[in-house]
Order: sequence, then structure tokens, then C-alpha cells
Amino acid sequence: MDYNECWLTYHPMEGVKGVEPLDRVTVMVEGAIVDRAVEELQRGFRGILGRELEVERKQNLSGVPSGIVLALFEGEMASRLSSLCSLTQEGFVILTLDNQIYIVGLTQVGVLYGAFDFLRRLQLGNDLRNLYVVENPMMDMRMMNHWDNMDGSIERGYAGQSFFFGDDRILVQERTKDYARLMASIGVNAVVINNVNVKNKATWLITDLYMEDLVKVYEIFESYGISLYLSVNFASPMELGGLSVADPLDEGVRGWWRDAVKKLYVYMPNFGGFLVKADSEFRPGPFTYDRTHADGANMLAGALAPFGGVLIWRCFVYNCMQDWRDVKTDRARAAFDNFIGLDGKFDENVVLQIKNGPMDFQVREPVSPLLGGMRDTNQIMEVQIAQEYTGQQKHVCYLVPMWKEALDFNTYVGGKNTTVGEVVSGQTFDQVNCGLAAVSNTGDDYNWTGHDLAAANLYGYGRLAWNPSLSAEGIAREWIGMTYTGKAEVVNVMLDILMESRNTYEKYTSPLGIGWMVNPGSHYGPNVDGYEYDNWGTYHRADHLGLGVDRTPNGTGYTRQYRGPNASMYESLETCPEELLLFFHRVRYDYVLRTGKTLIQHIYDTHFEGVDLVKRMVGKWEKLEGLVPDDVFERVAERLDMQVESAIEWRDRVNTYFHRMSGIGDELGRRIF
Amino acid sequence: MDYNECWLTYHPMEGVKGVEPLDRVTVMVEGAIVDRAVEELQRGFRGILGRELEVERKQNLSGVPSGIVLALFEGEMASRLSSLCSLTQEGFVILTLDNQIYIVGLTQVGVLYGAFDFLRRLQLGNDLRNLYVVENPMMDMRMMNHWDNMDGSIERGYAGQSFFFGDDRILVQERTKDYARLMASIGVNAVVINNVNVKNKATWLITDLYMEDLVKVYEIFESYGISLYLSVNFASPMELGGLSVADPLDEGVRGWWRDAVKKLYVYMPNFGGFLVKADSEFRPGPFTYDRTHADGANMLAGALAPFGGVLIWRCFVYNCMQDWRDVKTDRARAAFDNFIGLDGKFDENVVLQIKNGPMDFQVREPVSPLLGGMRDTNQIMEVQIAQEYTGQQKHVCYLVPMWKEALDFNTYVGGKNTTVGEVVSGQTFDQVNCGLAAVSNTGDDYNWTGHDLAAANLYGYGRLAWNPSLSAEGIAREWIGMTYTGKAEVVNVMLDILMESRNTYEKYTSPLGIGWMVNPGSHYGPNVDGYEYDNWGTYHRADHLGLGVDRTPNGTGYTRQYRGPNASMYESLETCPEELLLFFHRVRYDYVLRTGKTLIQHIYDTHFEGVDLVKRMVGKWEKLEGLVPDDVFERVAERLDMQVESAIEWRDRVNTYFHRMSGIGDELGRRIF
Repeated sequence: MDYNECWLTYHPMEGVKGVEPLDRVTVMVEGAIVDRAVEELQRGFRGILGRELEVERKQNLSGVPSGIVLALFEGEMASRLSSLCSLTQEGFVILTLDNQIYIVGLTQVGVLYGAFDFLRRLQLGNDLRNLYVVENPMMDMRMMNHWDNMDGSIERGYAGQSFFFGDDRILVQERTKDYARLMASIGVNAVVINNVNVKNKATWLITDLYMEDLVKVYEIFESYGISLYLSVNFASPMELGGLSVADPLDEGVRGWWRDAVKKLYVYMPNFGGFLVKADSEFRPGPFTYDRTHADGANMLAGALAPFGGVLIWRCFVYNCMQDWRDVKTDRARAAFDNFIGLDGKFDENVVLQIKNGPMDFQVREPVSPLLGGMRDTNQIMEVQIAQEYTGQQKHVCYLVPMWKEALDFNTYVGGKNTTVGEVVSGQTFDQVNCGLAAVSNTGDDYNWTGHDLAAANLYGYGRLAWNPSLSAEGIAREWIGMTYTGKAEVVNVMLDILMESRNTYEKYTSPLGIGWMVNPGSHYGPNVDGYEYDNWGTYHRADHLGLGVDRTPNGTGYTRQYRGPNASMYESLETCPEELLLFFHRVRYDYVLRTGKTLIQHIYDTHFEGVDLVKRMVGKWEKLEGLVPDDVFERVAERLDMQVESAIEWRDRVNTYFHRMSGIGDELGRRIF
Repeated sequence: MDYNECWLTYHPMEGVKGVEPLDRVTVMVEGAIVDRAVEELQRGFRGILGRELEVERKQNLSGVPSGIVLALFEGEMASRLSSLCSLTQEGFVILTLDNQIYIVGLTQVGVLYGAFDFLRRLQLGNDLRNLYVVENPMMDMRMMNHWDNMDGSIERGYAGQSFFFGDDRILVQERTKDYARLMASIGVNAVVINNVNVKNKATWLITDLYMEDLVKVYEIFESYGISLYLSVNFASPMELGGLSVADPLDEGVRGWWRDAVKKLYVYMPNFGGFLVKADSEFRPGPFTYDRTHADGANMLAGALAPFGGVLIWRCFVYNCMQDWRDVKTDRARAAFDNFIGLDGKFDENVVLQIKNGPMDFQVREPVSPLLGGMRDTNQIMEVQIAQEYTGQQKHVCYLVPMWKEALDFNTYVGGKNTTVGEVVSGQTFDQVNCGLAAVSNTGDDYNWTGHDLAAANLYGYGRLAWNPSLSAEGIAREWIGMTYTGKAEVVNVMLDILMESRNTYEKYTSPLGIGWMVNPGSHYGPNVDGYEYDNWGTYHRADHLGLGVDRTPNGTGYTRQYRGPNASMYESLETCPEELLLFFHRVRYDYVLRTGKTLIQHIYDTHFEGVDLVKRMVGKWEKLEGLVPDDVFERVAERLDMQVESAIEWRDRVNTYFHRMSGIGDELGRRIF
């Protein structure tokens, strides 16, 4: 096998309490998904305990032998358990009763999730003697978005080529199934396999041309409880159907889509639906025909509705041809300005997919005010596991803490305390089809994610989508234990590296929320003015006195897109969180921060600190030699060296830039070039 | 025909004095080249006078009829003319005697050049009744370098695709011959058809694989007096021959090259030779084997010598992986530092090709100190007709004045007054194989050069290589008259636009010789910090106080590469030409220039002026509507619009950058963003 199995490697574990009676699995439900659960249990037992699980099939509970029991929450089982728990569609309960451990779901996929959960507990060495676990996912939609192109490349991919496509063909291979296993193990239940920028052959994915192979992927996914979604080209009726328009109110266009969708459901009755990037970065959309995004989305949703399909519409719509001289237009405002007026105008099976921040996946952004801006629209928050702006899987950057910050942000939309997590889980307005989506960081690299430690982000995303109240540290501990070992000398070092990594990355890159000081195009490495005079709406506006963007009502007025308390918080220099200071305010270099340091000294200090922290990471990692597999040790060590080199470049370029610009020396007299 | 004929369009001309007796051409010499001369005369007469020239062949002078007489400077003709003139190999004399006009060369190519010269005079309306013209080219080598790739692309090409190559094949077509006509008409006598970066299939051009088509190009060129040259890959013995090294002192390598060269001369006995870019920007070279450039060049020269071939070795060798933090390394020093110690160590048939400036074809650079640094080495000065850094044939930028400045620069190498022109024409040290080389600006665009006015650079280069004492204005007048018309209302407008164009371009781009403020990669459009933190050795070092590079002995010491008087001139702020101030000195924004303006005010003013001048160019050009062909008028008008737009972008970005950096306002309070 030319790849590893990440956190499903199943390494030996000794001394787990309560494993003795577990030598068989009794299966009380039939179906492909439960078969996958049984397979996985067998695989896990083989790896963790070196034990072959016997499989027995049974219809009723009387005389069930000792061991694991897989069953649906129905009939006799339901009556036994209903006082103990209530389950939703994908939920499960795990219960130790005497010599049996019951893994019970309302549906087959609940059983599968329960099996993965059980194996996690086993691998982590939990005591199995008194299990009483009830888990229902907090979010309906736990999506993965792949920006994979049909030529095999991956947009913003940093872990090799696509394992879904190559050479304009769909690949169906062993890895497809192992991918599905990995996703199911963390609760991902919907996957878009193709890039949101749908061009060339990818436009044809919804046609007969690819149906045969597509169905194979669909079936593999389905047996792991994953709905297959496709990104579609809004101009398909023209490019594929030869129509002269793609106007969403045109009857010909509507009919074309209805036919196209119908055909998909003939072959894939549980096909998930479509993801659409329209009127964004030169992609076609309803604006061409003077129609709204609601017109566009509802038209596609209407075609999907009869089959239970879902239409996901991205809100990443902004003017990407801005004149840098124009200080009034503010890209941060764009999603809100474009969509807030449409709240309530979307069909029930439409979901808006909104990036966590108002810009684009920077290491530090406020939460998008559109999240919790709307009340009558299903919302998905989109995060990026792929480290486009956060080190491209050459740098360690554990992103779960950042996503949690966003989920925990109080929007005030449903009263005094309504977090983003509550909104996108559908709780606040009692919605379905809400949740999280993430741009995947996978590719066909041996370790799936380029950087071995980047797998923690992939793992953590799924766990967080399942349950946003998990802590970032807890998730990291799980991932380390699952992937490598539970030994404290390893766990503590890795945890230490992961938990400080995002703050470290932030320190040596662009300061205090201003973002964007990267090389255009590649988005890797420092370039302070890289986007400063460009057309992307991403400016720091530094001059000899200071920098930052005034987004208060004195400036672009962006702050007023937030509800009252947040607007006030951001507008005042006193209450604005300092890590976002330059995002919201234009500040002089001699402005004194709460630490007592001037802004310029803060910039210098954090950049020196950032490099020192990365160097210390190298030292920490060295302690793991011999304690993690050699290949992992070497790969990470090599990437840490790259990270040191890049961090130094960041430090020197940023410090030099602001030293040249401000003329203010470093108080500590360190070397600035 | 999908292209025009530039300055060989031959448009009607009335009232030329002395044309009456010219209705036949008597040809007293036989050969392909003279046949081309006859064809050209016929074509010219047809176009200019609407007259068919009769052709008569004759052996001796007695009874030669009225009309044009083409003859060699030998026998009876030599004895008649020898008191009037002396000719060199490619020289010619044109003499009106009664009803005959004699066009006589020492060689056939002299006759061809004479015919083109005569047609030029005819087209320009010169009085033909008393012609007495003696012309010998001032330079032996008048080369054109094409950076054409075999896939049809052209490196730094701004006029379409290659007409020499496409799809990894050599193209032999009607345009090949018309290209040769154009080149011969301006005296170009050597052409390198492939890019100096020799990779992939281009490495194979010296093999049998391409011989058949190569010979066809060779023969077309030969009949126009043009020697075919090829750029070669220094690693050819490895890539083609399977040797393990390309070490120039290795006997196997030397033998491989001897065999390869021998084969070329079997098919092309007058093949010109090779051009080599070695150890430069990642190209292979002798450094790999710890050998000198002399070792490398002499090895190839030795293989070419038995056949009279010439080896041209580029001096564009520098550290292209410089750390921007390193302020000691100075790319400007590189050519001199790399080659001065080798003076006298090159074989006689080696020529060093040296870029006009020490950096890379910026709009303003001092002359390379290597030109006139050496005494015992054949030197070619390389200029770039392709407008890589000077507007990419979207902007008008007549470059002849710039090249003349370089040619007129006093090097002091041969005493008190020795210009670069004298050095590279071989006069100073009585050398052969010296001259000029230029990177062509041609492509398969209809008008050959993208911008119609860019053809003036192509034309002007050849004329200047033939005779460096021609004035830039005189050349421009010739080109306008040849291409369009001699009417004053057209000539004056075009002349005005051309003659102010380089200074205009300089005004709105990077100030006072500092260069490089372009977008990396494309080299088009402004990006003040584009190369500032990069590895190419091209820095402006601007901070809040000032900018510029100290290249005096207090700084990088570059000035000391010049001979005494030049070194002193550049080192002193008082005597340093101000247009090069920032190239040689680091200067504060408040430094007062000779105009009485501060540096910062100079930057603001020139950038506003530059845009105004371009806008005025638009107005001037509009006057030509109806006076030049409509397609020309439209194309140029369209490009002038692009130039205005780009100039505004330059103005605003540069002014904003320095305003932000310096904090000093514009005295005139104009809008700076």
C-alpha cells in the first residue's frame, strides 16, 4: 500500500480493562453499512489486541453470547434502551451490560459511528467495563469539500495529487474506500469530490460520460454513510446543453437542470446534491441575467427537491477587480452586503455556505457577520483544513483552536447568547441541513496530508463538526493516541507543538489581524506589499506613521454588519480584541498596546519570538526520535527545518519593511536588515 | 499574406530627380545574392515608381546601357573606381555617371546592401542625379538574437509566436525569406534563431534530427548574406552524447563537440557558429567542473575554428540566488568580476557578448564597465530590441537614443577618448568579429513587432550597427519615410512621439537609474517592492529617509570597475549624472537636485509629467487619422490607450509608495493616493 492509514492504523494496546470477554461480535442488523462496521471492528481488534473477532448473526436478544452486539434502536432493543437515551438519525449508544457491549444506532450509520467510537475508546485505552455513551451529532451536515481537478491537480493542495481524479478520469481504487473509512470514522457524512471552480471536463461530471465510475464512488461512499455531492458549473445548460443562456428564470434552463438531476438520481438514489460557486472570481452566475443569488439557488434546489437533494450555495462573492486606490470599497463587507437582503428568500433545501471569516482563511480574522446575520436561511460555516494561508502543510499549524473560536463566537442573533456553533448546528432557528464544511487538506501523498501533523486538522475537523463542544486539546490528545501512542512522553511533546503552533505561525507572519502579506499566486512566504497594490481588496495601507484598515463607521463601516454589542466592541479601540486591532483600526506605530508595548515594538518582538518558538519546536521534536516511526520522525523534522527557514524570512522581511517604513528602531537593538 | 513588409512596403513616390533613365538593371555578376538584389530592385521599382525594371546580363563595361548597373569591385570596375573609394568585405559604392547608376561591391553581399541603400534613397526621394555614396559597415558583426523556443513561444516576446519554430519543428515559410530581406536591408549579417536558454528539443538543433529543415533556413539566410548561428546547450555532450560530463577539458567532451561541429559544416559550409549562455540563471557551464569561462569558450571555439566558425560567449553571469539581506554583493559588479581576469585568455574566434548595462536592459543604466575594460578580447555589445523592461511593445519606447548613449560613452581604454562604439567596432584594438548583437522584438504578429512603432527599433538597430554615427533622429526619419511617407505632417508627429518616448517612459517608471520596480516574472507594470526582497540582486533599498544603492568605494565599490575619470565622475555626487543618481548613490528624499527640486519632489513631478506626456502623445497620434493606413492608426491608438492606463498605474503606485514611505507631501498638492 502506498499510503498509511492515519488515525486508523490500529497499533497494539495493552492493559485495557474489560476486553477479556470480547471475542465475538453479534450482528442483529443486516446491511452494507453494518458490514463495514463489522469489518472495521475485526480490523481494529486485530491491530489493537491481536485478536480475531468471531462474527455471529442473530435475530433477537435472547441468548446473545458475550462480546459486542450491533443492533438497531428498534423493537426489543428500543424498549430496553429508551429510558436511557434518545437518538437522532445518526446517533448511537454504547452500553456495557455484564459481558456484552451493545453498540446501537437508530440507523445503520449510527451503528457504524458507534463502532468507530468504540474502537477509539479501545485504542485510547478507556476502561470498557462500564461504558455508557450516548452520542448524537450536533450538526446535520459534516461536509468535506475537495478542490480536486480532473487533471489530477488539487487547487491549494499541498499533499500530492488527487486520488479522485487523474488524466480527466475518475479514479476508483483501494484508496477510495480507505478515504471513506477515514471520513466515516470522524463522522463526515457528505463529500464534494470536485473543485468548486468547475471547468473543462469537470463540467461533464453530471453527465453520462462519467456516470459509470461516479456510481462506483457513490456506492463506496454510501456504504460508509457518506453522501456524494458534486460541484457544478452554473453555465452547464450552455456548455453542455447548447442553450444560449443559463438564466435561472428561463424555462429551458430550468427544464435542462431538472432533466440532468433526474438522470443522476436514477443511478444514485441517495445522491447528496450540488455545491455552487457562482458570480465569484470569474465563475458564471445569475448576475449575468440580472437575477439574484436566490433565483439561482432556488432554481437548482427546485430540481433537486423531488429527490431529497440539497443545494449548497457559496457566499464567497466579492469584487475581485477592486482598484487599490479605492478606500471605500471593503471586501470584508461583501458576503454580508450580497446576501443579507436575501434572508428568507431561499428554498428549504438551500444552504448558504459562509466562510468563517469575512476575507479568506487568514490566520486571524473576525467571524463573518453573515453567520448569525440571517435568521431564515440554512447556514453552513466553511473552514479550510488545507493550509493555503497558514503554511501550506510545510508549517505546523493546528487549526482546531481557530475553528473553535469561530464556533464559540457570540452572534447575539437569538438573544443574549447565541454562538455561531448554535446557529450552524440549526439549534437557534430549528433548522435542518446546517453544519460545517471544510476544504480538505488531502492528496495522494503517503501520509495523506503532506505534513504528518496536518492530519490532526483533518481528524479534528470531523470531531468538531460532530461535537463543537470538544476541546482543541482533547481532540489533539485523541488524534495522537489514535495515530501514534498514548505514552505521555510522546503525547506531551506533540500536544505542546500542536497547541502553540497557530499562535506561533501568527507571530511571525502578518500582525494583529491585518493578513495577506503573502506572495501573490502561491500564497506561500512573506511579501508585505504583495497584495497592497493589487485588485483583490486586500490592503494593509501601511505608511510612515502606521497601518491598518479603519472598518468603523468612520472608515468602511464594516463593523455595523455585526449586531450591537459586537459592533460596539470592535469599534472602540479600548474594547477591540487586540489580536484583531489592525483588522478594525488604523493605528500609529507609537500606539501603546495593553501590554505596554508600542505597536512597532510589538511587531518586532512577536516576529523575533515567532522564530524562536519554531526553533524550540525543532528541539522538542528531536526528543521524539525513536518514539515515533522513523519515517514520520524524518518527514516532520524535514518540514520543521523548512518552517524555520521560512519563519526567518518572514521575520526579516516584515521587520525590515516596518523598520524602513517607520524609521523606529528596535528597543532591544536586535538585527533588523 | 498574413503580415506586412514593414519598411520594405515600397509605397509610391513622386518627383524623384534622376529616375527617368532608370528602366533597366544591367547585372555584371552572377550569384544567388545578386539575384536577390535584382529581385529587390524590381520589387522596389514596381512599388515606388510603378515601373518594371528590365534585366540585362553583361560581362564587360563597354556598351552598358542606361540604368542601374550591378557589379563587383574588380578588374575594369576596380580600376575605374579605386581612386574614388576603398571598400571592405561588405562595403559598396553607389555612383551616378551620366545615365547610369553603378552599385558596386567588393562582394556580392556588398552589391545587395548597395541595392537596398539605393532603394532607400529612392523611397526617401533623394536626388539620384549625382549619387556618390561610399559605405563600409563600421562593425563586422551585426547580429540578431532570437529568444524563440521550439514550441513556438518566444521568451520575452511581445509580438506573437515564433515564425522560426512551432510544435518542436523548424518552420520554413514565405516569412522566413521576408525576414531575411528585412534583415539584409538594414545590414544584419548574422542571426541566432533559437533562444539562449537551450532546453528540451532545442538542444537537438545541432543534430541530424533537424538538419534538413535547418539547411533550408541556412540557404535562405545565405542568399541574403546572413550567417546562421545557433545557441547551444553547454551540457549537450551529456544530454545528446550520453557522456557523463560536459567538462571542457575532458578529451571525450572535446571530441564530441568536434564531431558535432564537423557534421554541421558538411551541410552548411558557411555556418556562422554558436552562441552560449553558460553558468547563468541555472544554465550549465564550465563552473561545474571548476573550469573557467575561457576553458569553456575556447573548447567550443577550437571545434569551430577549422571551419571559420565563431564562438560567442555571453557575460550575463551573476549570482541569481542572492540574499536580499546581503548588501555587499552587487549584481552590477558581476560581469566585470567574472570576466576581467580572463582578458587575453580567449581564442581569436571567441567573442564576448556583453549587455550594454551592468544589470539587465533597464530603461536607464550606466554602460557596463566590462565594455572597454578588456583590451585583448573581442567584444560584442548586446542590446535588447524586445521591450522587456521598457513597455513590452504596448508602450512606445524608441530605444535608438539609449543605444547611442552607450556607443558614445567614453571608456578611456585606448587613451583620452575611446568610445564603446570604437571598442566594439574593433577599431581600438584592431580586432575582427566585434560588433553589436540585439535581442529581437519580432514575432508572427501581422506587423512583426506588436506595436507598429516598435519596428523603428528593429530598423534602427540595424542601421546603428552598420554606422553608429547615424543620429537617432535621422534613423527615425528614414524609418518613417520608408514605412509610411515623407510628408511633413506625418513625419513631424511621429518623430515627435518617437523622440520623446524613452524619456517619457523613464519619467513615469522607476526614478533616476534605480530600475526594477516591475512585477516579477512578467516584468510589466509597476511593483515598487516587486524585486526588493527577492533573490535577483536588484534592490532599491528605500526607507523612510531615502533610497538608492551606494556603489562607491564606501558601498559596493562598483564604481572602481571604471577607468579613473569615469570612476571619479560617478563617485562624486556633484559630477554623477543625475539621471543615474540612485544607481550610484543612496540619497535622502530632501536632497536637492541641480534643478533645485528635492529628490521626493522630483519623483512626484516626473511621474505626473510622464502621464501628461503620454496623454499628449494620444492627442498627437489622433492627428494622423487618415494620414497613415487605418489599421496602423487603430493599432497604435489602441496601444496608446493601454499606455495611458499603465502610466497612470505607474504614477500612482510609485508616488503612493514614496509618499507613504517618506511622509513628505507633494508641494503642488496633487492627488497622491
